[in-house]
Amino acid sequence: MKSKKAIVLLSGGLDSTTLLYLAREKGYKCSCLIFDYAQRHRKEIFSAVRIAKKTKSDYKIVKISLPWKGSSLLDKTRKLPKGSLRKKDIPSTYVSARNIIFLSFAVSFGEAIAADAVFIGANIVDYSGYPDCRSEFFKKFKQMIDIGTKNTRNIKVETPLLNLTKAEIIKLGQRLKVPYELTWSCYKGDKIPCGVCDSCKFRAKGFSQAGIIDPFIEK
Amino acid sequence: MKSKKAIVLLSGGLDSTTLLYLAREKGYKCSCLIFDYAQRHRKEIFSAVRIAKKTKSDYKIVKISLPWKGSSLLDKTRKLPKGSLRKKDIPSTYVSARNIIFLSFAVSFGEAIAADAVFIGANIVDYSGYPDCRSEFFKKFKQMIDIGTKNTRNIKVETPLLNLTKAEIIKLGQRLKVPYELTWSCYKGDKIPCGVCDSCKFRAKGFSQAGIIDPFIEK
Repeated sequence: MKSKKAIVLLSGGLDSTTLLYLAREKGYKCSCLIFDYAQRHRKEIFSAVRIAKKTKSDYKIVKISLPWKGSSLLDKTRKLPKGSLRKKDIPSTYVSARNIIFLSFAVSFGEAIAADAVFIGANIVDYSGYPDCRSEFFKKFKQMIDIGTKNTRNIKVETPLLNLTKAEIIKLGQRLKVPYELTWSCYKGDKIPCGVCDSCKFRAKGFSQAGIIDPFIEK
Repeated sequence: MKSKKAIVLLSGGLDSTTLLYLAREKGYKCSCLIFDYAQRHRKEIFSAVRIAKKTKSDYKIVKISLPWKGSSLLDKTRKLPKGSLRKKDIPSTYVSARNIIFLSFAVSFGEAIAADAVFIGANIVDYSGYPDCRSEFFKKFKQMIDIGTKNTRNIKVETPLLNLTKAEIIKLGQRLKVPYELTWSCYKGDKIPCGVCDSCKFRAKGFSQAGIIDPFIEK
């Protein structure tokens, strides 16, 4: 039997790495799609490549430019948010339409290799402020690609982490033997994680709630 | 009164240039979005820049890579189609999800500058084979962005050329004084248009049916 093929959006962070291991467990042959979009934490790209290689997955690095301001994740003159983990407002790290753009490339790649699914590690529990992390969005996105592509194969849009807490993701990853020591979460791209940005805090809280020591810290 | 703002997807070809002039006539202050995606006819980018400058519009060039095969428009080892103008099948120049990707960037840009509309020169009459040129696709795309972006402003997706024939577009452009001599249509990026690719043929047929001499040929 020919194995199923999936495109996995891999950032090199904790969620998308768990996602890759999960897709592999589900029997998919994975092609990882890694974006270089001049993010502050470009360091995550090296993590992503290392993880793709470790799982012997194909990978493509797509370089894109987003030459408009608006996000503190792209604009080094803006301060990264820190302190509060849960916000009602959309955080300043929001990059307009980022998931829409990433998924569009994944669909293009997926159609080119006749993939069966596109996996994205979006998560609504921690990122409730991002409009493109909501399940209604993914439903609409799927409807849009069904009509907007050749559609010779029906590409599924899989979001298995959508409703998991960070602690649940980490526990899942532990079972899947995800090498979290290779992942990178910090929004700053310094030598060691800053420990205070939203992403660092979510990670720390997740490991703490899961009762697991972050192997990144241990290494 | 503050003028309305629009993002115009400008390729440098006949349709999108007419589109830019039409958006301007409708009272929009236009920001042009030009893509460098390693298309065979990268020459069109220079046309696009010249046209943006001529209309004193802002413009951004977005460089993207689509590192997967599949389209004769990206892969120089594949032959460009020529000869028949109307096909039932999707032509080999189809780039998977291209309009989805382009529109996603336009929405990102549009959200960053609080634009009122995104203009795309898609046309169903000549390009009936492209799934992402159908009106149902644009409807679904609009529904998807309504839920997937901040949506503080409701960005319209405008496709005013969708149901026009090439001749009708050219007549419209003549009224709007579109400088067609600056536009580039040929899929090959040679010094002069090849005259035999689909794009050249659509152009020639359009001017012929409109009863207008192509100023590109005249110059």
